[in-house]
Amino acid sequence: MKRKVEVCFSPAIFAAQHRDDQIVVVVDILRASSAICYAFANGVEEIIPIAEVEDARRYKDEGYLVACERKGLKADFADFDIGPENFTPDVVYGKTLIYSTANGTKTIQKAASCKKVVIGSYLNLTALVNWLTGKDSDVIILCSGWKSRFCLEDSVFAGALVEQLLSTDRFTTECDSALASLDLWAVAEKDLLGYIEKASQRSRLQNYELDSCIKLCHSLDLAKIIPVLKSGKLVVES
Amino acid sequence: MKRKVEVCFSPAIFAAQHRDDQIVVVVDILRASSAICYAFANGVEEIIPIAEVEDARRYKDEGYLVACERKGLKADFADFDIGPENFTPDVVYGKTLIYSTANGTKTIQKAASCKKVVIGSYLNLTALVNWLTGKDSDVIILCSGWKSRFCLEDSVFAGALVEQLLSTDRFTTECDSALASLDLWAVAEKDLLGYIEKASQRSRLQNYELDSCIKLCHSLDLAKIIPVLKSGKLVVES
Repeated sequence: MKRKVEVCFSPAIFAAQHRDDQIVVVVDILRASSAICYAFANGVEEIIPIAEVEDARRYKDEGYLVACERKGLKADFADFDIGPENFTPDVVYGKTLIYSTANGTKTIQKAASCKKVVIGSYLNLTALVNWLTGKDSDVIILCSGWKSRFCLEDSVFAGALVEQLLSTDRFTTECDSALASLDLWAVAEKDLLGYIEKASQRSRLQNYELDSCIKLCHSLDLAKIIPVLKSGKLVVES
Repeated sequence: MKRKVEVCFSPAIFAAQHRDDQIVVVVDILRASSAICYAFANGVEEIIPIAEVEDARRYKDEGYLVACERKGLKADFADFDIGPENFTPDVVYGKTLIYSTANGTKTIQKAASCKKVVIGSYLNLTALVNWLTGKDSDVIILCSGWKSRFCLEDSVFAGALVEQLLSTDRFTTECDSALASLDLWAVAEKDLLGYIEKASQRSRLQNYELDSCIKLCHSLDLAKIIPVLKSGKLVVES
């Protein structure tokens, strides 16, 4: 029997939609889920997602490598803002990274009650499709959105992932959000970066001069890994 | 200066997205907002939206005309289920109608804190565009969805309404949900009833043999009225 794939367009909807026996794919294309995949591709050992700035500061005091950003500004104590371009091999290889952002990390924590939580982005799309296809669970793709709102870039990616999963013939969907995301992906894929130009988050990043990562965040298959949440930490699924 | 139009895809997102100075257009195409517009077009005097079944029963005991449905079944004490086809002129003209459904009426109550709450559907689309254009407020289109989830039929209608408002040149949008709804409408409008075939709510109605109203719920401009919420009752905006 085919397994079901659903899309949830906002963490605010998640409680009404998910079941604990689903695998949750957390998506925050601009930028958390892309940055996490990039860091693992470059050899980071583990990433600890932290919701509160003060907790991130305590980790810094203990000597950890810390990425922390709020409202477009790197926290004064942090080593980096949260963009993927920071996490090159020379910086992260073999290290533990503390990662704190208002949106993406809260979404991960919201999903934490579910059977399995993994991180998805264009950077690990093919690896993710192969991995999900090999499991025997239904899947829900949880878009982080922005401050609980719907966002275009996550929803378009959800459509790309749904399309790939359906094409394996192992999945089916009856979910309206999944069907809508397929239509959005079909419109966007012809010129993905052009389409994303109109996304609100793209303008926000531009205002903070943080938009140089947009191309990287929409790059396909740079990472052949699946980041998975285990006991509050992200590690590579073995 | 142009006014802003936004779309909110679920009542669960509404608290994070709306401002009290916006006009809220409540949408529940299958079937509450279509039924309410149809009843007003056919001369109903006022409609009292009621969230709780027991409250609807009390109104019936007091002699009111009551439409009440839960999980696809007309409540045993009620005069009608909540489909628009019930509300013909011979039945509703000059009357007060009590209207109770799990989804649509709760959405109306959720919106009630805002400056102005009106009901939108294909049945009053042109009237609504003209009326909103003549006001001086920003607009948020609130899709009822289904049990807090995103639904296709409301989101597609939101796209139709956003398109019409933008075409007046009095509105602009920077809202990702509005942009997505425009794309969905562009896909759906070529064959609207065909597109809606895949919506989950269409299957639910079919399972309950309540789907004969789908064409009526997607009929354009049968109603040249704006139902507006005043002191907990819906009346026609004069």
